[in-house]
Amino acid sequence: MESIHEIVGWVEGFDKKKSALLIRDRGVIRKLKIKKASKEIREALIDGGRKALVRVKVSRSDGELIADSLQMIHILREVSPSDVPDPSKPDEFARKSWLVIRTPKSQKVLLIQHAILKYLREFLDSEGFVEILPPVISTASDPGLRGASKLKTKVYGVEYELTSSTIMFKQVAATSLGKIYFVARNVREEPPENLSTGRHLVEFTQLDLEWAGASIHDVMDLAERMIEYVCRKLNRSYGGILKDFRKNGLQCWDRPLDRLSYKEVLKVAKSLGVNVKEGLELSQEAEEAVSLALNKPFWITNYPAGSRGFYYLRDENDPSVNRDFNLILPEGYGEVIDGGEREYRYEGVIERLKGLGEDLRKYDWFLEALKYGIAPSAGFGLGIERFTRYALGLKYVWEAVPFPKPPGIAGTP
Amino acid sequence: MESIHEIVGWVEGFDKKKSALLIRDRGVIRKLKIKKASKEIREALIDGGRKALVRVKVSRSDGELIADSLQMIHILREVSPSDVPDPSKPDEFARKSWLVIRTPKSQKVLLIQHAILKYLREFLDSEGFVEILPPVISTASDPGLRGASKLKTKVYGVEYELTSSTIMFKQVAATSLGKIYFVARNVREEPPENLSTGRHLVEFTQLDLEWAGASIHDVMDLAERMIEYVCRKLNRSYGGILKDFRKNGLQCWDRPLDRLSYKEVLKVAKSLGVNVKEGLELSQEAEEAVSLALNKPFWITNYPAGSRGFYYLRDENDPSVNRDFNLILPEGYGEVIDGGEREYRYEGVIERLKGLGEDLRKYDWFLEALKYGIAPSAGFGLGIERFTRYALGLKYVWEAVPFPKPPGIAGTP
Repeated sequence: MESIHEIVGWVEGFDKKKSALLIRDRGVIRKLKIKKASKEIREALIDGGRKALVRVKVSRSDGELIADSLQMIHILREVSPSDVPDPSKPDEFARKSWLVIRTPKSQKVLLIQHAILKYLREFLDSEGFVEILPPVISTASDPGLRGASKLKTKVYGVEYELTSSTIMFKQVAATSLGKIYFVARNVREEPPENLSTGRHLVEFTQLDLEWAGASIHDVMDLAERMIEYVCRKLNRSYGGILKDFRKNGLQCWDRPLDRLSYKEVLKVAKSLGVNVKEGLELSQEAEEAVSLALNKPFWITNYPAGSRGFYYLRDENDPSVNRDFNLILPEGYGEVIDGGEREYRYEGVIERLKGLGEDLRKYDWFLEALKYGIAPSAGFGLGIERFTRYALGLKYVWEAVPFPKPPGIAGTP
Repeated sequence: MESIHEIVGWVEGFDKKKSALLIRDRGVIRKLKIKKASKEIREALIDGGRKALVRVKVSRSDGELIADSLQMIHILREVSPSDVPDPSKPDEFARKSWLVIRTPKSQKVLLIQHAILKYLREFLDSEGFVEILPPVISTASDPGLRGASKLKTKVYGVEYELTSSTIMFKQVAATSLGKIYFVARNVREEPPENLSTGRHLVEFTQLDLEWAGASIHDVMDLAERMIEYVCRKLNRSYGGILKDFRKNGLQCWDRPLDRLSYKEVLKVAKSLGVNVKEGLELSQEAEEAVSLALNKPFWITNYPAGSRGFYYLRDENDPSVNRDFNLILPEGYGEVIDGGEREYRYEGVIERLKGLGEDLRKYDWFLEALKYGIAPSAGFGLGIERFTRYALGLKYVWEAVPFPKPPGIAGTP
């Protein structure tokens, strides 16, 4: 963890024997030795259902943290566990997200999510990727949402859509800069029944990268190295917190991970007794069964053409399948990465958009860009909340984001 | 810059004497020595208005970059300067953002913006701040927009607002975690006449931080150290690019910067012959005049109460002014940071919301949080595009963001 000069945290108690104040700093209890119990410290040790938020200047001596000075910030009602809704009640949980965020569990989740984002960026920066700021509204977002709907707004009286995926922007940016990524918020009105999956959100965050000239194998290799980097860094710097969530910490895997074609996965699912329909997208049930049966993450490649994103290239050797892939997490956590090689030819995209019944005029700018010419590329989106959920073994994805919006629930913060 | 193993870039030429390929990699021309001019390399040297995007494996020898292998990605029509609209025509410029992004200038801007974000995060992480993912929609966003309007959408039939500022989320998160920040996209329908300022965007990005228990002086000190850190890092790692934009590179200043009260700034503006009205927000004209007259950034503190954000605390010694501040950049670039100490008391916020004529029911969750109790805090938002614009001396803020949305212009990507 970073070097500590100052802590802003909650007073949790006093260890008389060690003359140390116990401070909860972002979910982690720290012992701060104090020289003498001053008036401020006595005041900070409040009971009767109230807690003190304090600011402590800290130094280090013999590997111990010493509180050099203490400033009382505020005294607040203590968050009693009975005030905090259980995540199995997503409606109440989402409505009280302002209180959920105060629990030690949520503090730790957010600290780990911060670390995940930091290590992802560290890795991608070292690989020469440029982080770009993604738009949250545009005249037309990704039309290929498979079941979910896009949200609309109006700007100066003109209809815009909220970003459902950054695909077109990624392709254009990679054409210029070669290797790029967004940390992009995506908004989709999910079918309310997706609440039961525990892994959908109306608003979620993708690490969305694109690499000009890359093949699916290039980006799958990159993703494997990226996940290994993040996994090792997390264990090294946040091992203690990980063990609060997963008894043995977070397991990192040897590369390369297994790459199964969609057809092979169907066979595995059938052998597990799951009822599968060929040609359609793998059902959540089938994906979960395979994810539970295999004890490490695996890739599914070559989904049936037409079953997924409108922008994937067909496989040259077998046009009935895409040049695409998903990364499936073990233990039933399911899909965390969706990616592939992109259609970059004007005629190809026109055909896809027409196939979806889209009004071409909405995609004017992208079609103009395609006519001018853009580069072939491959890329993927990694779900930050899903990855956080998996890293910490959380039951529901809405535990892995501050201020969550679970499917089918409206009117929350 | 990062270590280079692979370059994805545009072939710009061949230096016969040095037997080196010239590749434009994110705006920067790199010389890659080649061992022999293979067929691939001859093919990459295309003329007749076309350009090759290539992928080159690179090694280093005697401080020189060596092209170990070269893969042709795609050949594309060359972007001719006459195809690219001038930023003085914001409508065309925004419509063709997919082409603007391909210019060497835009590539460099985006690389610098990437570096700015990276160094901001590096600094804040080292100070113990936690980065949190911000929502882009909520039932009610910041009501105190001064002239701009919020955008609306519907989720499951219920009205939501697009994030205009993250203020309420920041306060709640800082109460839990002490020190937090968002890199948040804000969306505001700006009055079309703000197009002429050259410094407004419908969609912009803020580094939005909040610190429980801090005073305005704490966060102004933090901001000064943060900007100095970013400035020094930029000069060290990207000095060459900075000099392409600013002859002498980016100047870093001695701390602390001058802190002038609003009243003092009015006097300066008057002495410069600007017509100022007391009690109202400083006009853009007055701010620019002072910004041009002073040759380093300066703080304006204690704006008249009621002239700015609904959430600032009043000054205890003089309730006619706020405990707030702006950082004004020199050379006429104007405001880049807006911050202050926040109203955190239930009654105070109710009073403010009523004063704005807001429907209290929309702010239900925040009022509930306030009733439960939240911490006093201070924080600020730093405009990423404005800071980028200033760092590179760009004429218009829409040059400092990919896919810009200038005020009053609709139907752009």
